[in-house]
Order: sequence, then C-alpha cells, then structure tokens
Amino acid sequence: MASIFTRIVNGEIPSYKVAENEHCYAFLDISPLAEGHTLVIPKKEVDYLFDLDDELYVELQLFAKKVAKALKKAVPCKRVGVAVLGMEVPHAHIHLVPLQSEMDMDFRKEKCSLTPERFAEIAHKIAQEYQK
Amino acid sequence: MASIFTRIVNGEIPSYKVAENEHCYAFLDISPLAEGHTLVIPKKEVDYLFDLDDELYVELQLFAKKVAKALKKAVPCKRVGVAVLGMEVPHAHIHLVPLQSEMDMDFRKEKCSLTPERFAEIAHKIAQEYQK
Repeated sequence: MASIFTRIVNGEIPSYKVAENEHCYAFLDISPLAEGHTLVIPKKEVDYLFDLDDELYVELQLFAKKVAKALKKAVPCKRVGVAVLGMEVPHAHIHLVPLQSEMDMDFRKEKCSLTPERFAEIAHKIAQEYQK
Repeated sequence: MASIFTRIVNGEIPSYKVAENEHCYAFLDISPLAEGHTLVIPKKEVDYLFDLDDELYVELQLFAKKVAKALKKAVPCKRVGVAVLGMEVPHAHIHLVPLQSEMDMDFRKEKCSLTPERFAEIAHKIAQEYQK
C-alpha cells in the first residue's frame, strides 16, 4: 500500500505544499514543532534516507537546501534546523524546523496548534520565497 | 579565532576520528546521545550548513551518507538519525546518531558516559567499516 506521503504527492491526501520539483516534494508538517516546520521528501517511496541512490539523495539534499533558504526568509528564525528520524512513516523525510534556540528541536514537546488559514498563509509565504 | 572543530581537523585538539576525505572530517561526539554518535563536518569553517556552496554541501552530504552506512554496520541500530542544530559551535556539523527508537534523538537527555578505551574502540570499528 502506498505510504501516506506518496498519497500526498499524488494529491489523494491534501497537503500545504511549499515546493516541488521533478523528484522531490515539500509540505508543512501538520504537527509542527514551530510555525513553518516543513517536511521534504523524495517522490519515490524509499523508507530509509541512506538507501536512496546517490543521484536522488543529492537532488533531495539540494532541494532541501533551497527550501530551507526560502523557509528562513519566510519565517523569521535564527536558523533552520534539520532532523531525520523517520520511524513513524516508512518514506524518507527530512524535517526542516525554524529554530530560535536548540531547544526548539524537541520532538517530545507539545506541537503547535494552527488554524487551516494560518497553515495556508505560511505555506504560501514559503512558496513565494522558493519561487524567487 | 579558529573554531574548536577546525582545531580538531588540524590535529591541535585530539578527536576519535572515524573518517576523512579531502574536504570533510568525521569524529565521535564526546557527549554522545548513544554509542557511535558521530559528527560530520566540512574542513572549511562555515557556520551555517545552508551557507555552504552547493559543491561542498553535496560533498559533505555524500560523505555523511557513507559514514552513516559504516556507522550502521559498526553499531547495531534500527537506523542512523540525522540532526543539524548548530548553535553551540559556529562550524557546520551534522549529527549522526544510531537510533533504536525516535526518542533516542533527544538532545535534552543525559549523555552517555564512555571510557576513552570504549570511544577508541567504537571509532576504530566505524573506521574499519568506512574503509571497506
């Protein structure tokens, strides 16, 4: 069965998309650690990041860099942190989290609660910066 | 002044080295979240990961992938997690952490206490796998 992320890429499940290219897709995490928390994935369903072949791995990392730069412009923060844990969904994904302090990257803390309107607004801002 | 990581690369401060190539260096974190917790850095002193130029960024990410594969063979774990926080040392570094569960990637938890002999043994095992 297709992963939830594959179904998001295919448009079967809606997402707050922030960027996309031929092989990669980025969208807002709906249980964000901070406003702007984004997930970056390869469209191809590969469970473990380091099992990606080098070509797709590099493309994904360069895409993540470009998304991170857009994210930092769209959502004021000291820097964009990166995390790959990847045990809850069997489809490789890179978390990009706007950080004010190291403590913001704490997956145990309570997630932010945002309205659909706010999610859409943030996604739109990041998407605009990505396209610049 | 040179960062502590630059001084490690230059051999002015000792480290438990696990791998090295022309532009990148990997060594054990001495306050590890888990046995085998490794830091991967560019030799060039750049503070923020996403400020690296694309060429060095790609080289660093491919080096991290190779180190992560060696780490997973040397230290039994479900997978190798990735984190980039980077506020404590102004020199970009990627944490590679052997994970048994998502909760292992918790920078607030108490760090492992290992003897110098154990650090050396782990570094040697990873280095051996890296060189295969």
